[in-house]
Amino acid sequence: MSAYKEMWEKLNLDIPAHDGLLAVLGKFYGDIYLSQQGRLKGMEYLDFVLSEVHGLRVKELQDAKAQGRKVIGTFCVFVPEELTLAADAVHVGLCAGADAGTEQAEKLVPRNTCALIKSFIGFKLARLCPYTESCDMVVGETTCDGKKKAYEAFAEHVNMHVMELPQTKSESARALFRAEVLRYTSELERLTGVTITPERLAAATKVVNDKRRALQRLSRLRAADPAPISGRDALLINQVSFYDDPVRFTQSVNALCDEMEARIAKGEGIAPAGTVRLMLSGCPMAVPNWKLPYVMEGSGAVIVGEESCIGTRNTRDLVDESPADMDGMIDALVDRYMRIDCACFTPNTERLDNVVDMAKELKADGVVHYALMFCQPYAHEAMKVEGALRAEGIPMLAMETDYSMEDVEQLKTRVQAFVEMVR
Amino acid sequence: MSAYKEMWEKLNLDIPAHDGLLAVLGKFYGDIYLSQQGRLKGMEYLDFVLSEVHGLRVKELQDAKAQGRKVIGTFCVFVPEELTLAADAVHVGLCAGADAGTEQAEKLVPRNTCALIKSFIGFKLARLCPYTESCDMVVGETTCDGKKKAYEAFAEHVNMHVMELPQTKSESARALFRAEVLRYTSELERLTGVTITPERLAAATKVVNDKRRALQRLSRLRAADPAPISGRDALLINQVSFYDDPVRFTQSVNALCDEMEARIAKGEGIAPAGTVRLMLSGCPMAVPNWKLPYVMEGSGAVIVGEESCIGTRNTRDLVDESPADMDGMIDALVDRYMRIDCACFTPNTERLDNVVDMAKELKADGVVHYALMFCQPYAHEAMKVEGALRAEGIPMLAMETDYSMEDVEQLKTRVQAFVEMVR
Repeated sequence: MSAYKEMWEKLNLDIPAHDGLLAVLGKFYGDIYLSQQGRLKGMEYLDFVLSEVHGLRVKELQDAKAQGRKVIGTFCVFVPEELTLAADAVHVGLCAGADAGTEQAEKLVPRNTCALIKSFIGFKLARLCPYTESCDMVVGETTCDGKKKAYEAFAEHVNMHVMELPQTKSESARALFRAEVLRYTSELERLTGVTITPERLAAATKVVNDKRRALQRLSRLRAADPAPISGRDALLINQVSFYDDPVRFTQSVNALCDEMEARIAKGEGIAPAGTVRLMLSGCPMAVPNWKLPYVMEGSGAVIVGEESCIGTRNTRDLVDESPADMDGMIDALVDRYMRIDCACFTPNTERLDNVVDMAKELKADGVVHYALMFCQPYAHEAMKVEGALRAEGIPMLAMETDYSMEDVEQLKTRVQAFVEMVR
Repeated sequence: MSAYKEMWEKLNLDIPAHDGLLAVLGKFYGDIYLSQQGRLKGMEYLDFVLSEVHGLRVKELQDAKAQGRKVIGTFCVFVPEELTLAADAVHVGLCAGADAGTEQAEKLVPRNTCALIKSFIGFKLARLCPYTESCDMVVGETTCDGKKKAYEAFAEHVNMHVMELPQTKSESARALFRAEVLRYTSELERLTGVTITPERLAAATKVVNDKRRALQRLSRLRAADPAPISGRDALLINQVSFYDDPVRFTQSVNALCDEMEARIAKGEGIAPAGTVRLMLSGCPMAVPNWKLPYVMEGSGAVIVGEESCIGTRNTRDLVDESPADMDGMIDALVDRYMRIDCACFTPNTERLDNVVDMAKELKADGVVHYALMFCQPYAHEAMKVEGALRAEGIPMLAMETDYSMEDVEQLKTRVQAFVEMVR
């Protein structure tokens, strides 16, 4: 890792603290990932990417920057990657999945703020995230009260652009979002000096759609019994989709899917047929937030799907590639993003249908709903999702947790009881 | 009170529980309000209104309904009262200031929901609020995650109309709000059968502006030292402004202001000159949420202003009365509402200026910032308000509490220390 020390120093990271973080992350990854039996060969690529998460990929960003390209950091699936790529910029999700710099973060945002928000602020204030330090611009969105207000404080530390997201899906709400998409387009053009032409946007849209198609294919293959891939590995793939090079990533996922198909044809899997199949639903799990999946799969279940922003919420819908003029392409983009079933919308009944459909398609025996502590939108929806699943005879367990390890035993007890119940 | 029993039974209230609530409220009012020395004579009207809060005023609503008028319930200063009145409907703020039906409410919304939201849901589920039961329509707004998602559940129990409020003050955001104002107009016309003409809207706008002018006058008079009115009484006046008949209320407030002017001219006040002057800032305090003001004024301070929705946030701005055509009048309405400095907006720097200006004008020795527990927007802004006040040498105490009485001693200790500090 020391090969990157110079780069990290240039990025002004807190080197000793960062070394400590990587050591913990490595240990954590070994315990949770490398300990798994019967993994797909294609996961080697993901293991490599993860082992180089603050190394090679960050180096690629520096190389891109040296060539004059810009790096855009994001926290949410509502920021259109198509536009970022069309401006020849690099689009990366920022570190938000581990407790870091919490004390410093709590000077900027209230203690009763969800772990994800405190995490990205803490990573910045503690100088631990080489992605944040590489960003020419960070793009926020008004999805929830916590993020909306946290970005105001965060803007004192990074070059922030905040997109307003509406809270309903009315015509006027769509018009507001469309105006915000155009404002992001202009901001990108100003920052990069690149004009986003229909040709550039079409090419970028194809790249992002291809990534979504590969992840959709992966999702579909998980309906097989025995399950061809662990939930931990599938989650990792979705996590990596937010910061890896999109073309290379898509190829790797498709290769992995080929391997999964061969495995399924042979009737093989990561766990024996008949293993309890659980689906995850709720808040995003950013790298390295693997606590709950680890607890679930350590309790004799296999996770068959993630109804989450780091999961199907980000991959379900494609952008229509047929329009050829800029106006039509922007409309197609807006239509696609306004279909996202985020809990920030009111009402958001599509999500209830999507959760139920997904649980049925994946033959889930039960659903674990995951809400980050203090995340009001998903805590509210947990109650509705439970009702929708109950009406279909699918049991649900509602969990509320954060990034600390203090509640692991308690989570285990509850998950094990749930697995026994649905078995 | 039993004179109203038949009415309450018709409204399907839980009579024994409601009797209990009124008894507690009466005792509470006696301790907090009637025990005060040197009150203004004009407060007798407010004492009467409060003593008849579930009686005479509710009777008036039933009489209005018998005449074919509709009753509209609200929870927020963003619902334009001008339009409600122009449709010849009655506009009332709904009960949301006391713990009631909490257990039932927690089946509909998460436990980590602010007391105000749990309160209005609890009042409904426990059948304790004659206002809610009188409503032909309840109007919500997407101001915060908590309310936005709670209205989805609440809509299963009342006839709900939710207005989308934008989260920024951009041109597109204004267009969204304008469309929502028009949608509310149509909904009112449909419900009442009344067409909202420019004449009707002009008359209603004048009524609401007059109410605001009277409350502005009251606010200004509180700059006097000694303070002519207690903060408790001023808060009560603001609370009553949400459900009393607006014309009668305005007359009473102006009469009270006349009395205040006479008192000021004589150099008299509710507390001796030199009493520590504190300003309240933050979340709304709905009836009968008087806990913190009681603690503050019981600690030797006098409250000179409420920077709150139940306070200056609702009265600071008037609607321009000069346009005569419908389009111009709606624009004026939208302009006025989009000036509100609610923490739901990002950024919301106007509020920082307003808090500082107000503290200076009222010669406040310090500011107590009040955030309801789990209210993320105001908890975030507390940190910013503290910074803005500090820059002007004005000390601030940040309090986070709910409607329970469990923390009263703790609040007292902190407030007393703050009063000593700013003395």
